[in-house]
Amino acid sequence: MRPAEIIRTKRDGGALAPEAIREFVLGHVRGEIPDYQASAFLMAVFLRGMSRAETVALTRAMAESGRRADLSSVPGVKVDKHSTGGIGDKVSIPLAPLVAACGARVPMISGRALGHTGGTLDKLDSIPGFRTDLSMEEYVATVRRVGLCLVGQTDDLAPADRRLYALRDVTATVECIPLIASSILSKKAASGIDALVLDVKTGSGSFLKDLDRCRELARTLVEVGEGLGLRAVALLTDMDQPLGRAVGNAIEIEESIACLRGEGPPDLEAIVVELGAEMLVLAAVAREIEEGRRRIREAIRSKSGLAKFREAIEAQGGDPAVVDDPARLPNAERSTPFPSPQEGFVAGIDAAEIGIAAMSLGAGRARAEDEIDPAAGLLVLAKVGDRVKRGEALATFLHRAGTSLEEAKERVARAYRFAPEAPRKRALVLERIGR
Amino acid sequence: MRPAEIIRTKRDGGALAPEAIREFVLGHVRGEIPDYQASAFLMAVFLRGMSRAETVALTRAMAESGRRADLSSVPGVKVDKHSTGGIGDKVSIPLAPLVAACGARVPMISGRALGHTGGTLDKLDSIPGFRTDLSMEEYVATVRRVGLCLVGQTDDLAPADRRLYALRDVTATVECIPLIASSILSKKAASGIDALVLDVKTGSGSFLKDLDRCRELARTLVEVGEGLGLRAVALLTDMDQPLGRAVGNAIEIEESIACLRGEGPPDLEAIVVELGAEMLVLAAVAREIEEGRRRIREAIRSKSGLAKFREAIEAQGGDPAVVDDPARLPNAERSTPFPSPQEGFVAGIDAAEIGIAAMSLGAGRARAEDEIDPAAGLLVLAKVGDRVKRGEALATFLHRAGTSLEEAKERVARAYRFAPEAPRKRALVLERIGR
Repeated sequence: MRPAEIIRTKRDGGALAPEAIREFVLGHVRGEIPDYQASAFLMAVFLRGMSRAETVALTRAMAESGRRADLSSVPGVKVDKHSTGGIGDKVSIPLAPLVAACGARVPMISGRALGHTGGTLDKLDSIPGFRTDLSMEEYVATVRRVGLCLVGQTDDLAPADRRLYALRDVTATVECIPLIASSILSKKAASGIDALVLDVKTGSGSFLKDLDRCRELARTLVEVGEGLGLRAVALLTDMDQPLGRAVGNAIEIEESIACLRGEGPPDLEAIVVELGAEMLVLAAVAREIEEGRRRIREAIRSKSGLAKFREAIEAQGGDPAVVDDPARLPNAERSTPFPSPQEGFVAGIDAAEIGIAAMSLGAGRARAEDEIDPAAGLLVLAKVGDRVKRGEALATFLHRAGTSLEEAKERVARAYRFAPEAPRKRALVLERIGR
Repeated sequence: MRPAEIIRTKRDGGALAPEAIREFVLGHVRGEIPDYQASAFLMAVFLRGMSRAETVALTRAMAESGRRADLSSVPGVKVDKHSTGGIGDKVSIPLAPLVAACGARVPMISGRALGHTGGTLDKLDSIPGFRTDLSMEEYVATVRRVGLCLVGQTDDLAPADRRLYALRDVTATVECIPLIASSILSKKAASGIDALVLDVKTGSGSFLKDLDRCRELARTLVEVGEGLGLRAVALLTDMDQPLGRAVGNAIEIEESIACLRGEGPPDLEAIVVELGAEMLVLAAVAREIEEGRRRIREAIRSKSGLAKFREAIEAQGGDPAVVDDPARLPNAERSTPFPSPQEGFVAGIDAAEIGIAAMSLGAGRARAEDEIDPAAGLLVLAKVGDRVKRGEALATFLHRAGTSLEEAKERVARAYRFAPEAPRKRALVLERIGR
C-alpha cells in the first residue's frame, strides 16, 4: 500500500492492516515517508480513531523502530510503573526501591519535566552525582545487580515515537487516546519489561481532565499492553490536588526519602502502597493485592526500601549519604510563606495552577530548552480538608534571591478554593482496570 | 493565532476567522509554516469541512499569495469559463473565440493533462508555433487587442494553490469540496476576470462521480465566486460519455475548428451554445439566455468565431492557416479501427476508460513528466444511442507505428455497454445553479 492510500483508508474511517501501519511507521522513521504525510495520517487518526488491533500494530511498529533492551539475562518478572503525570508526582522514586526490596525487578525509564508537570529525571538529577544517562549495557547490568534502575530514554529506543511525538506537538494531534497509548507503550515495550502498572491521573492536575476520557485511556493502555504481551493493570487515581506536599525537584527527593522512612505524607504513602501491591502481584512476588500491600508496608517499616534506594543511588554514581542526610541535596536560598487570604476549610486546590507556580519559581520548564533550578519549588502546607486561619501559610515558596514571586503568588491564590464546611473526602484510587 | 491553534480550531470543527486563514496560507507560501502543519490542516479541513465564509477567506488568501493580473486597462466585462474536466472536453477552444466574436473579453487560463483527462494547453500546443507561455504583460495586451487569450498559469499566479495542491495530491486530501473550490477560484480571481461560468461535469468521466457531490461543488463554486466579487453561474453537465468524437490533442483542435464552422458534433455545439450564452449574459452583452444562444449560433453561422480563432492563433504566434487546412496539424502515422464485439444499441460509454485508452496511445500523461504525442488519440465513432453491427468500428485509434494497442483495446472494450433497445436520452445540461 502506498502512503497516500494508507492515509486515505484511515481518512475514510477504514481499518488498517498491521502490515500497512508497520510500513508507514518504519517508512517514516527511515525518512522515506515525509513528515507532511505523517502529519496528515496523525490528523486522520485523531479524527477517525483506531481500533485496539490497529493501536497494537502501531505500538508494536514504534517499539520495533529502534534498539530494544534485552533483559532476558535478568531472572524473574521485570515490572515497571508508568504515570500519565501530575503535580508533586514523585511516586516512582520511593516505589521502585520498595518493589525491588520485595524481590521484583524494576527497570524504570522516565522522562523530563515539560509544562506544568515535573519529570522524574529532573528530580533524580538533584541527587549529587546521580547519572540517569546510562548506556543500554549499564542499564541491563544495574537491573540485574541492584534489582532496579532509574534512567532516561536513549536516542535509539523507539525513535519512531520521538519523531511522531515531535510532529503531534505542532500539529494539534496530542490529545488522542490511541496516539497517547502507543507513545507510552512503545517505549515500555522496547525497554524489555514483562509487566506494567499504569497510574492514570484524573482531575485538575491531569492533562486529560474528563473522567470518561481517563477511563478510556486506562482501558486502552491495559488492552493494548496485553495485546503486546505485557501483563498490565491500570489504576485511575486522583490528581485533583497535588500529591504529597513537595512540588519541585530536590524537595521531592527529600519527601520520597521521608516516605521510604515511613514519615511521608499519607496520600503519597497510600498510593505507593497501592501501586506497589499491584506491581508485586503482576511480578508474582505476591499472590494477591492484600499480600502485596502488607509486603510494601513491611518494606517501609523495616527500611529495606530505604536501603535499596541507597544501593541504587550508589550504583548510578550518586551520593548515597543523601538518604541519611537530605541536607546534602541542593537547598533553596530563600523560603517565602504564602499567607491564606481567608479563614475556612480548603475545598479544592487546582493542581495545574500549583504546577505552573512551581515552574515559575524555576522548578520546571516552559520550553524544552529552559534550565531548571533543582532547589526551587513549593511546599503545599494546607491540603484539601485542612482548616486554615487568615494569614496562616498555605504554601512556602522555595527560590533564589531575586526570583520574581508574582506569578507564583497569583497562581497559588487562584488555585485555592475555600468553603465554610469541610469538603467530602475523595478516594485516592478511583477505579482499577485490568485482570 | 499560532499555526497549531489554527489547526486545533479546525480539528475541533470550529470556524476560523478570515485573518487566521490568511495568516496560515501566506505563512505557508512564505515557507514560515512547514508542510507538515499545512497537511495536518488540510486533513482537518477535509474531515471537518469549511463554511462558505471560510472558503471565501481561504480562496482570497490563495489568490493574493502571488502576482495578480490587472485587466483594468481592458474595457468591458472580462468573462472566463472553467470546466472541472472531462474526456474530449475541448469546449474552451471553440467557446472563447465565439464569445469574443460576440463582443465579450475572454482571458482564459488553462491547465495541462494529467491522468485520464486532457488539458487545453496540450491541445493548443499541437497548433504549430502556438505559444501558451505568455508573460503577464503579453497576456493583458492580447486580451485588450484580440478580445481573448488562451494561456497557461504563470509561476507567480496564486503560488499558494500550487503548494497546497502538491501536498493534497500526496496526503489524500484532494476530493474535498472547499479545497477544490478554493483551488479553482483562487487562480481565476488572480487572473483579473469579472465573471465566470463553471461547467461542472458529472458522470463516469468526471472526477466526482456522485450527482449530489457535483451539485454541492457547483453551489460552492458559485457562492464562493460571488463572495469574491465575481459574477458566477454553474451548469451541471453530462460527462457520462466522451464529449464529441475526438479524444486527443491535434484531433480535438480539428474538431474545435469543425465546431466553429458549424460542422462539429451536435453535443459539442449544444454545450458551446449553452455556456456561451451564459457568458454573454454575465458579460452584459446579451440581456437573457435565449438572446445569448442566438448570438453564439449566429457567430457560428457567420464564421465570425472562426475568424476570431484565426486572429487569436496569429496573436499567440501560431500558424493561422490550420483553421482553413487542419491537415497542417500533426497527423498520426497509423489509424486502427476497433470493431464492435456485438450487435445492438450503445447503452453507455465509460468516459474514464476512453480517457485512459487515449492516454495509453500517447495522448495524455500517467505522470507529470510523461511526454505527449500531439497526433495520438482516438475517435469515438459510435456514441450512446447509436445502433451498431458486429464488426462495425466503434472507435479508431490514432497512433505511432509500434505503439502497443493492448491497453487501449482492453479499455475501449470495457468502456462500451450494449442493449437490445435504444437507451433513454440523457439531457446534456442537467441543472443550472446561480443568478
